[in-house]
Amino acid sequence: MKDIVRRSTRRIMLGNIPIGGSTPISIQSMLSVKTSNLPEASRQIRELVCAGCDIIRFSVMDLDDVKAIRELKNVSTAPLVADIHYDYRLALASISAGIDGLRINPGNIGKVEGVQALVAAAKERMIPIRIGVNSGSLPSELLHKYGVSAKAMVEAALEHIRILEDLNYQEIKVSVKASSIPLVLESYRKLSQVCDYPLHLGVTEAGTMMRGSIKSAIALGILLEEGMGDTIRVSLTADPVKEVAVAKEILVSLGLRKGLSIISCPTCGRTRIDLISLSEQVEAALAEYVDYPISIAVMGCAVNGPGEAREADFGIAGGRGEGLLFARGEIVKKVPEDCLVKELVSMVQDYIKTI
Amino acid sequence: MKDIVRRSTRRIMLGNIPIGGSTPISIQSMLSVKTSNLPEASRQIRELVCAGCDIIRFSVMDLDDVKAIRELKNVSTAPLVADIHYDYRLALASISAGIDGLRINPGNIGKVEGVQALVAAAKERMIPIRIGVNSGSLPSELLHKYGVSAKAMVEAALEHIRILEDLNYQEIKVSVKASSIPLVLESYRKLSQVCDYPLHLGVTEAGTMMRGSIKSAIALGILLEEGMGDTIRVSLTADPVKEVAVAKEILVSLGLRKGLSIISCPTCGRTRIDLISLSEQVEAALAEYVDYPISIAVMGCAVNGPGEAREADFGIAGGRGEGLLFARGEIVKKVPEDCLVKELVSMVQDYIKTI
Repeated sequence: MKDIVRRSTRRIMLGNIPIGGSTPISIQSMLSVKTSNLPEASRQIRELVCAGCDIIRFSVMDLDDVKAIRELKNVSTAPLVADIHYDYRLALASISAGIDGLRINPGNIGKVEGVQALVAAAKERMIPIRIGVNSGSLPSELLHKYGVSAKAMVEAALEHIRILEDLNYQEIKVSVKASSIPLVLESYRKLSQVCDYPLHLGVTEAGTMMRGSIKSAIALGILLEEGMGDTIRVSLTADPVKEVAVAKEILVSLGLRKGLSIISCPTCGRTRIDLISLSEQVEAALAEYVDYPISIAVMGCAVNGPGEAREADFGIAGGRGEGLLFARGEIVKKVPEDCLVKELVSMVQDYIKTI
Repeated sequence: MKDIVRRSTRRIMLGNIPIGGSTPISIQSMLSVKTSNLPEASRQIRELVCAGCDIIRFSVMDLDDVKAIRELKNVSTAPLVADIHYDYRLALASISAGIDGLRINPGNIGKVEGVQALVAAAKERMIPIRIGVNSGSLPSELLHKYGVSAKAMVEAALEHIRILEDLNYQEIKVSVKASSIPLVLESYRKLSQVCDYPLHLGVTEAGTMMRGSIKSAIALGILLEEGMGDTIRVSLTADPVKEVAVAKEILVSLGLRKGLSIISCPTCGRTRIDLISLSEQVEAALAEYVDYPISIAVMGCAVNGPGEAREADFGIAGGRGEGLLFARGEIVKKVPEDCLVKELVSMVQDYIKTI
């Protein structure tokens, strides 16, 4: 199978995380609590870091949020990004407080002197700025001219980019998010033709765990497979930790990141065990090994299972009351149904010690 | 935004459902119980029909399953497909019992006379045959020659196709499924270049609700967006009804089917209500309207929500203890938080009466 050929982009650094220029695609998420709520914000940051989130963003809406930055920097091993609307002073204060990156649209943050001051401060510490265009908040003159369209999205991004370039600042990444998949696709495709800044991919207001992960998987899947995307965020109306899990699954599925893959057959007339519950048990039991490049198969049928899943490193196939443990298509042993998951996990643990 | 240009394929009929030739993309699912278990099989068929499943497949493994077909035909308003391995006699018996379609690989079903008899019987009632190639059960000579690869997948499909074409039968659709996304993509892309039979898209052994819907959304999303796919199945290790819901969401997201879309913002520091629970309540409350072309927004922020979601037909935006009901960006009224979902549903119901 052909590997995905990634589009070449400039390389920037966000804290210790490189973005663009064929470096690994990083995963972002965002706090869902008020940033100044230190206990909750710290807890979410710890959970996100633990889940493997590479970059963590939060809103900075007021000076209380700015004050929280120093404390949160002590909590986080991942770089932190402040999301700021309309106010360059909050951005300046966030830089002083030690923030690693900004998401702010320079065309919306106030007077020219403000933008100049902000860029000067960012330049001093090489703090990257994400220009984040959103279909829901396009400038009214572009809306008037082009409607809600990819043209308006890209034009908005380019206007913000020009402001930074005119100030000789190029530590930039860009996003053009919408909740309509066709609009997301067209906007990123157009944008990637006219600029080589790293792209932050995302679908806004994607929805609940079910709807949101499907929409994000489609849009990010298509763009990533075409070689676009240097950093991604899956937006869900759900616990941010789930955003990281979905993002990882997208990258692993496309072969863009190494990690655990679990396949399981749909149950059918041949299945003699409760495969839905078994698969979910396996998924939960192996959750902590999600970054290991191992493939696991959970099959409902002892006759065809091991052979059909011969590509998997390890697997189990259920029968009636007992099941088979197999490795690369070869049966290792027969075990009682109750022990299948435990035996599989211990086989995986033994293997992990060897890699 | 540009519409997806669908690849032109031959048109076949599966019962009353047209497939291919730019007819609407149909949704399939498969029973997860033994076909001869009439109470359970009937229940699943009713649930699938109710969920909007266009085509329902089940395994036919023995004569008990064949006997169930007549009964299940009485239960189902959707056409029924028998999935048969290695035995043309079960296929012949299924045709006599009134089946609407077959999934059988003619290269694997026994002696030449058997294939001839089967095709003659299928031809009499114009019963379409799906050739279903699976990466887990490729013929050993192709495996030996090409390994598990798109080349082997497509070659296997073409061999089966040739057998039917040599018997002058062209009521065919084809699938080349695998659990590896890159392999699925390459196989369907290659196949669609060399044949114009309608394509049945799917990822095998995709996994649980979470993993399986992500993988299916990526693979089917990419192929559909490139114009491939005449009928789709999302395979999940989950209740088949969920397969239909995921399939619909994929088609609606890409603009390939009309239906309910629900966007909801990720919660952030600005959110003052329990948006996760609110979105899930809205999703559940509107489940029965999933086939109506309505867009709904569930926003966490009363200040930006209505404006950002001005593309949505209707929406709610939560505040502290109360929220806003809005329509196309205009605020309709302020209601207590407890009544938000109820008021939204009643607004949707009133609208549905007018369309």
